[in-house]
Amino acid sequence: MSSNRGLFITFEGGEGAGKSSQIKRFASYLESLGESVVLTREPGATETGKAIRKLLVEGDKDKFDELTEVLLFYADRRINLTQVVFPALNEGKIVLSDRFNDSTVAYQYYGAAKFKDTSILDTLYNLVAPNFKPDLTFLLDIDVKKGLKRSFDKAATMATKELRFENVETAFHERLRQGYLEMAKKDPERFRIIDASPDEETVFNAIVKAYNDFIANR
Amino acid sequence: MSSNRGLFITFEGGEGAGKSSQIKRFASYLESLGESVVLTREPGATETGKAIRKLLVEGDKDKFDELTEVLLFYADRRINLTQVVFPALNEGKIVLSDRFNDSTVAYQYYGAAKFKDTSILDTLYNLVAPNFKPDLTFLLDIDVKKGLKRSFDKAATMATKELRFENVETAFHERLRQGYLEMAKKDPERFRIIDASPDEETVFNAIVKAYNDFIANR
Repeated sequence: MSSNRGLFITFEGGEGAGKSSQIKRFASYLESLGESVVLTREPGATETGKAIRKLLVEGDKDKFDELTEVLLFYADRRINLTQVVFPALNEGKIVLSDRFNDSTVAYQYYGAAKFKDTSILDTLYNLVAPNFKPDLTFLLDIDVKKGLKRSFDKAATMATKELRFENVETAFHERLRQGYLEMAKKDPERFRIIDASPDEETVFNAIVKAYNDFIANR
Repeated sequence: MSSNRGLFITFEGGEGAGKSSQIKRFASYLESLGESVVLTREPGATETGKAIRKLLVEGDKDKFDELTEVLLFYADRRINLTQVVFPALNEGKIVLSDRFNDSTVAYQYYGAAKFKDTSILDTLYNLVAPNFKPDLTFLLDIDVKKGLKRSFDKAATMATKELRFENVETAFHERLRQGYLEMAKKDPERFRIIDASPDEETVFNAIVKAYNDFIANR
């Protein structure tokens, strides 16, 4: 399958859902079909984005307020879009993004619950990505405790400094999960909810099936 | 003079107008009157702000687009406001800021001329500083060539890496100056245009006089 405009596919979900592994595997699958694939992530897909990501994920989580945080997320998003996503789509490539705007809404609005509604996030999204959204979004959904356990086991072997978002209470992650499910329910055309609790192979097969159904029905 | 709310005074102007020297001198003057003074600057008043400033002022000026640039400026502004300006004003202090929002409008809208109007900048300002503006703004106005010569002479002795905004053509600085004058004309209650071409002492005396007139007429 090829088109002039390419395809923008995002992977979303909470901690330990297995997004990173699934994206890599799905990229290989698409390449085996002859597609040109570009991998990206938020935050931190570019050199400047990495500097922004560092500000966002390291250090004291109260070092700046929630509005500063989202301004930085949207600055990073704008860089990802203008330097990675849009150019690749214009070349007809398939872009897979590890997190995109739904993550900001899920984490900052539903999870952190510091905004009274999504209007500020919507305003910023419309500034950085007017008339644009992903063609397809895989929501890797997993029981919160199971996901956190996976995430914790992985972090323990990685000596990661990126504890800012994972080092918070279970209630946060429950709100996050329900928020994602609510967003998916509101936009069923774009979202595919994938049960991320089975083994990696089973989850991968579910993603491939959902993708092929999407392509067949375009 | 003291109040519960303090005073927020901003210093604006193009390159070589002498803002930094005048702010230091004016701060000493206010302290000699018994005021508590806090100095701040944009971008880069805080630790996080300094990291953002680094992204903004160093390197290739086309490394990201104008929208990314203003998102970073407003993230820095939000940090400056929430961590420096608002707390000091609540303690009744006088805050002097080396640049504030007028700089973004002057440089990004008038100077760089990459936005069709100021609506995006206004939207972002209202997000980070709802119902807030400086009590007084000193616009240090100087002939463009004279200012650039001063700035160049200073940079030559400083081995500065911050050439991004100064390393642009004269036409840019002319637009910048006219933009500042236009903003001052639209908001005469807040702005005081100070002729910054004479020697430092003369400029300082003009600032003190304008300040004292402002206080006398509050």
